[in-house]
Amino acid sequence: MRKHYSSDTECLEVRLVETIYRLSYTGTIRITVSADTSLLCRSTMLRLSLGVLVLVGLVACKTPPDAGNLVLVRNENTRSLFDRYSCGSGETSPPGRVDTTQRLQRLRQQMIQANLSAYIITSGDDHQSEYVASHDLRRGYLSGFTGSAGDAVVTLHSAALWTDSRYYLQAENQLDCNWVLMKSGYKEVPSIQEWLLSELLPGDLISADSRIISYTEWTNWDSYFTKAGLRLELLLVNLVDKIWGVEEGRPPYPSDPLFVLNTSYTGLSWQEKIAAVRQSMDNNNCNALVLTALDEIAWLMNLRGADVPFTPVFQSYLIVGLTWATLYLPPGKSTPDVEAHLNANGRNEADSVRIKNYTDIWDDLPNLKEDGDRVWLPSAFSYARGASYLIYKKVPEGKAVFAVSPVLLMKDSKSDIEGHGMQNAHVRDAVALCQFLSMLEDGVAAGEIWDELSAVSTLERLRTAQSLSLGPSFGTIAAFGPNAALPHYEPTFETNRIIDNTSVFMLDSGGQYLDGTTDVTRTIHLGTPTDTEREIYTSLLMGCIDIASTVFPEGQTLSSLEILIRAPLYRLGLNYGHGSTHGIGFCLGVHEAFNTTYHENFFGSQGKHYQL
Amino acid sequence: MRKHYSSDTECLEVRLVETIYRLSYTGTIRITVSADTSLLCRSTMLRLSLGVLVLVGLVACKTPPDAGNLVLVRNENTRSLFDRYSCGSGETSPPGRVDTTQRLQRLRQQMIQANLSAYIITSGDDHQSEYVASHDLRRGYLSGFTGSAGDAVVTLHSAALWTDSRYYLQAENQLDCNWVLMKSGYKEVPSIQEWLLSELLPGDLISADSRIISYTEWTNWDSYFTKAGLRLELLLVNLVDKIWGVEEGRPPYPSDPLFVLNTSYTGLSWQEKIAAVRQSMDNNNCNALVLTALDEIAWLMNLRGADVPFTPVFQSYLIVGLTWATLYLPPGKSTPDVEAHLNANGRNEADSVRIKNYTDIWDDLPNLKEDGDRVWLPSAFSYARGASYLIYKKVPEGKAVFAVSPVLLMKDSKSDIEGHGMQNAHVRDAVALCQFLSMLEDGVAAGEIWDELSAVSTLERLRTAQSLSLGPSFGTIAAFGPNAALPHYEPTFETNRIIDNTSVFMLDSGGQYLDGTTDVTRTIHLGTPTDTEREIYTSLLMGCIDIASTVFPEGQTLSSLEILIRAPLYRLGLNYGHGSTHGIGFCLGVHEAFNTTYHENFFGSQGKHYQL
Repeated sequence: MRKHYSSDTECLEVRLVETIYRLSYTGTIRITVSADTSLLCRSTMLRLSLGVLVLVGLVACKTPPDAGNLVLVRNENTRSLFDRYSCGSGETSPPGRVDTTQRLQRLRQQMIQANLSAYIITSGDDHQSEYVASHDLRRGYLSGFTGSAGDAVVTLHSAALWTDSRYYLQAENQLDCNWVLMKSGYKEVPSIQEWLLSELLPGDLISADSRIISYTEWTNWDSYFTKAGLRLELLLVNLVDKIWGVEEGRPPYPSDPLFVLNTSYTGLSWQEKIAAVRQSMDNNNCNALVLTALDEIAWLMNLRGADVPFTPVFQSYLIVGLTWATLYLPPGKSTPDVEAHLNANGRNEADSVRIKNYTDIWDDLPNLKEDGDRVWLPSAFSYARGASYLIYKKVPEGKAVFAVSPVLLMKDSKSDIEGHGMQNAHVRDAVALCQFLSMLEDGVAAGEIWDELSAVSTLERLRTAQSLSLGPSFGTIAAFGPNAALPHYEPTFETNRIIDNTSVFMLDSGGQYLDGTTDVTRTIHLGTPTDTEREIYTSLLMGCIDIASTVFPEGQTLSSLEILIRAPLYRLGLNYGHGSTHGIGFCLGVHEAFNTTYHENFFGSQGKHYQL
Repeated sequence: MRKHYSSDTECLEVRLVETIYRLSYTGTIRITVSADTSLLCRSTMLRLSLGVLVLVGLVACKTPPDAGNLVLVRNENTRSLFDRYSCGSGETSPPGRVDTTQRLQRLRQQMIQANLSAYIITSGDDHQSEYVASHDLRRGYLSGFTGSAGDAVVTLHSAALWTDSRYYLQAENQLDCNWVLMKSGYKEVPSIQEWLLSELLPGDLISADSRIISYTEWTNWDSYFTKAGLRLELLLVNLVDKIWGVEEGRPPYPSDPLFVLNTSYTGLSWQEKIAAVRQSMDNNNCNALVLTALDEIAWLMNLRGADVPFTPVFQSYLIVGLTWATLYLPPGKSTPDVEAHLNANGRNEADSVRIKNYTDIWDDLPNLKEDGDRVWLPSAFSYARGASYLIYKKVPEGKAVFAVSPVLLMKDSKSDIEGHGMQNAHVRDAVALCQFLSMLEDGVAAGEIWDELSAVSTLERLRTAQSLSLGPSFGTIAAFGPNAALPHYEPTFETNRIIDNTSVFMLDSGGQYLDGTTDVTRTIHLGTPTDTEREIYTSLLMGCIDIASTVFPEGQTLSSLEILIRAPLYRLGLNYGHGSTHGIGFCLGVHEAFNTTYHENFFGSQGKHYQL
């Protein structure tokens, strides 16, 4: 689970596992050894003679020169970047792909009615979430491309989809021939803005859903387009929603109600948390704070839900005033338990959180206009994208103040009880992982047929059998041999490989539990790894040991510590193209924004991914 | 030789030596083992069993609880910060100090004539040099305080001097009772601006010498004072110069002429260098570059001089046009050799550097006004302070463009020949240092009396006896026992200590040579160090070994590598409050500005200074 990847398409890759650790009160790193499958399992790791408690696994995999899908990836460099090689001449929708002809035609009718020359469809939801409900997969519906990252742009005559190197192949195979595939990362590939500039005429109107687009991104677009003589139009309806209804098979949002996460898990009550938030608002002379990120609302309210995949959050907005608070929820989501928890109907407004309908926020925001009001909107920070443009636009003019959300910074430091929970969750999670690795090792040795998909389903079954489980925290990456060289690979029916003792198996997975969230990678070889694999594995392991055993003063930035992790790899003349750490939420996002330093009660994942 | 220090006044301190190293073409650090006195000398180092070629020494010194000058330092915290405790009531100038009463009176007469309410006298020269000629020690003349860092401000009724923690004691003992001592670094101590705000009335005029004050600092002052209702006045004369003439004992500038540094030392001719500079000007659409930093001019012209202490540079300005260049020199500084070297009277202007009088630049700058002229002025960067405010002010309005000097960035990467020279200079320098350490060790063992001052003079004699020597590259820091705990300590008659085998001796010194510049610290104990001293020494040494043996891609910033140096010290729960590396010039400044990364052919010093 990493944020950035090298766009290098060559074939030898090593992944180093994620370790979970905790900075203790003395500023040292205390290892949560319970998370260490290498200690609990019969070792399927490469044999390393190490006298330290460190919890890493990793993999080195050498792509055979003729390996299926990687050959395609490698050959891409010799083709035209814009050549849709899977589309025959005159073909619009090859068999097995979603035919988008009708969808595009219907969208263009909507665009013409709205007087638009271009419409941008991104992958997000109204809360700038990392994972979104299937109801919100508008870009997927329109284009047929199901990868997690990608932006579509439709003009009256063209349609183009931008995605990064992880998805070049998948997009080529899923997009029908109505689409231009834009491979982000290549110099020759224009940005969305550049492309629109070349496609449109001065004065043309462009739009997108300003609920989904962050304030930062929208204003960047706006200033670019304005300079270029184009116009970015604010539209209050989503045009894809107009053509994608129940009749077209659009899935509804999940109907699961919210549930209360007890203080025996969280350590702090919502009353204590909201008091700290109000203190922060007061310090910043703000009398209202609009929370839009689902994990921040869930954390602050001590509530959880099941509205998006992999993260136990729920659709909502929350406005916190100095003496009142309003939670906006879709119908059917609250329960008597939730109302009692929030004291939603309490006599004293200051001790209660009122519940209103999800869509009422759009009426309430313009009314935050008493004299002297300063309305705090979360700015983009770390992985958090901040409030949407429409949220900003609905706040009375001149009242909005952008700053990092106080909730983002508070939840970044886990409470002691959350910290213990994280450790306990890792113990149970490790039991499931050990059970799985043991089954796999024995099974392969006994001649059983194992493949990536059966590995995923078996591990998922074992993990969800653990107590307090809420399911996986992200899509399991189970990758054998050459597949392990694909960043963010998730096995599909088409790519599925048999797991045997001839190569490396990489397993990057995690779970959501009521008492914590895990993100653990283990890399094993069921036979004999090559010398190169051993060397790189050992170097990555050394970096993990070095960072894990280093003592440093609180508040060092991640970038000031990276060298410790990378130095052993540098010695081999190797490197990887992304950061090494992300924050982890508590029964929340597996990729959690944080204050960019290593500090007390920060929980982070340490991962490396190497491509030779 | 470090840039920043902790203001902690407690008593245990360790210094770790400076190592000189070079990044080779492969991106590894190659150690110039020749600089390693621990290899060449009979070892007087603490006994460390290390199987690596590393060149460090360091010192741990424990201040006895009753140690003379440190007790004063420690007690300062219990006095009023502004209490001139060395001044009796009604006393103006205690015996043994410079009586500044007359000087201040004469300066105030000048101020009244100029209608000024305050005058700021900083320590700099017209070129923002680190070390300045005694002719330019105006603040020292006016105040009697001779420390290297300090700013004086005189109003019609008060006089105050700001200095940092290194100089609190010296300033207290040198300033007479006309002066308030402002101990920079304490929260309670106002800045110069804040103090002036409290001393002056709205509309009052303030001035300083805008030749000495950098553009950045002047404009900061100006905007502060303007907001506060005060006015910063541009004055073309220096008021201290009007009261400090030959009759008052002002020393003249040194009369030494310039000399040519052959390409056998520099590797590149000035013609090659200036061609690269012109290319850079052209790339930045500038048709004139005004160089004001003495080391940049000396480097570009392959000339050296002896106008300031410790750095073989000469007073000058240089304006480089795309097809012409003019060097501004005081009378008597050029020689026929220099003129021939510069082809100063050559027929073709493009192949020649014209020589004009030093002060002519003030007439020429306003004439850089052909249409389309963009005049490049060096901005403040790394340790370079950039052009003075007056330089900026004299350039025709709207023509000045501030950017990092191309010369700063070019000289930061040594030529191969400079690189070899740096190594050779270190070999000879190490011979002198070894001779000295050997004499000291034998002498102390044989009962000879050695003290800090005799150490300095002996080492200086041995060093200057080496071939190609141009003298020391900074004031030698020779510090025994508690004195070694004073950052930037230089022994004086009053502080001088006997060197024996009961404590640690720290020696931080360097030399200027025609083929390089050195900066080397060695710390020894002639008896038996304590366990704490050994532990800290070893930790600092480990950090040096770690950074020296780390391989990394070119272009890592220093701050991203610091953790390697500090980690072993952090393990003890210790730290130091300043950066670990500075650039080193080639037969130029011992503290040289650089591009802030570790890169090929960068030469830097690695020093640590620890206070428990």
